[in-house]
Amino acid sequence: MRFDVLTLFPEMFHGFLSHSIMGKAKEKGLIEANLINFRQFSDSKHNTVDDTPYGGGGGMVLRPQPIFDAVDHLLENVAEKPPIIMMTPQGEPFSQEKAEELSIYPHLVLLCGHYEGFDERIRQHLVTHEISMGDYVLTGGELPAMIIMDSVSRLLPDVLGNPMSHVDDSFSTGLLEYPHYTKPSEYRGLKVPDILLSGHHANIDKWRREQALLRTWERRPDLLKSSNLTEEDRKFLRLLEADQD
Amino acid sequence: MRFDVLTLFPEMFHGFLSHSIMGKAKEKGLIEANLINFRQFSDSKHNTVDDTPYGGGGGMVLRPQPIFDAVDHLLENVAEKPPIIMMTPQGEPFSQEKAEELSIYPHLVLLCGHYEGFDERIRQHLVTHEISMGDYVLTGGELPAMIIMDSVSRLLPDVLGNPMSHVDDSFSTGLLEYPHYTKPSEYRGLKVPDILLSGHHANIDKWRREQALLRTWERRPDLLKSSNLTEEDRKFLRLLEADQD
Repeated sequence: MRFDVLTLFPEMFHGFLSHSIMGKAKEKGLIEANLINFRQFSDSKHNTVDDTPYGGGGGMVLRPQPIFDAVDHLLENVAEKPPIIMMTPQGEPFSQEKAEELSIYPHLVLLCGHYEGFDERIRQHLVTHEISMGDYVLTGGELPAMIIMDSVSRLLPDVLGNPMSHVDDSFSTGLLEYPHYTKPSEYRGLKVPDILLSGHHANIDKWRREQALLRTWERRPDLLKSSNLTEEDRKFLRLLEADQD
Repeated sequence: MRFDVLTLFPEMFHGFLSHSIMGKAKEKGLIEANLINFRQFSDSKHNTVDDTPYGGGGGMVLRPQPIFDAVDHLLENVAEKPPIIMMTPQGEPFSQEKAEELSIYPHLVLLCGHYEGFDERIRQHLVTHEISMGDYVLTGGELPAMIIMDSVSRLLPDVLGNPMSHVDDSFSTGLLEYPHYTKPSEYRGLKVPDILLSGHHANIDKWRREQALLRTWERRPDLLKSSNLTEEDRKFLRLLEADQD
């Protein structure tokens, strides 16, 4: 997978790209990450990338020229046009489904704004996807771009050490995860539930499934609508509903 | 504002903390960011931080001991207990409102897991908040912690150069932003809307408000419910609804 990241702050990516999963995936040649400062494509005397907004008002707006030219340059020798993704709070909310969809492409271009907005012509005529990380405001698109890179990379073959690691994740099953416990069986007076120490695997599986259902029902009932439930799951949820009344 | 970040990968934060807004806020003494590798608090021979899950299954689980002890150490000389925030996809979805709520505290502790889950006793008996960045799976809590640090820091007095910069942001007004344009007025045949070149400020304000409403109505109608609408706004939205039929 090739990631081209257009950013005014390429240095922000250094720690992220050299450690943990991304560092290892780069070393193994499973991903390639190119950081391009689009300031170098500016045709203005002082390499400016922004200007005041037409119509007045505070703040600055990113000019179309440096970004259009940077993308042209990136795509010069590229046979198939990759998704050009703008990080923006106005975009489609990012999700695990979106990560899976993006993980199929061999090449992604990620466009990060900083402080100010993009000229609307970039949004309308250059980018193919607009993605939001959630309903909050950040200084720039750099952290959202890293989130896309991380969540997409870990879905690629051979990036995670254990290929089964992401099968049981939250969202992959459509439910929040059941509680995990490890040693010691008692810590500061807090005990691990007896059932997990029982060695009875059928009971443990049932308990875990019910805990995942319970937690999702309590915290994120919206997820239950789209998760894949068995008849037994539904029975358990009906019991929860009845208990509540 | 003091941020204490408990992480197994403190190096991942280096680029983020030394550049842009965070770098400047640190330089000016407006924020303090302490990166604590909780591995150093492990009481085991090889400084392990995880172990196999009780009840079987794949993956590893973060042990309670290193994290409880690291938090004890952090809070030794602290008069008022700060929020202890776990980054987890099972948490409350992060939002601008949450960022504003957290920006009031002088001190936040951010707890990042990596790969594996936390022992449930950490969740139940140590942390005060559980926060999710969205419905997607990441390798660790480090990027979510950076998102909290960025979104909270920019709300602190004097961190942004222009104190008005965040007043017009998406979500601060309850609507998505209107389109921005800057020079040139024509680029690659793409023109700036005439109204923005008209110099007629009342008309421009009206156009911008309508564009913000239109964009929110098209992309995120859910936001309209909680935004602060005038009677004129409602009239415009009724026209949009009527046009659609």
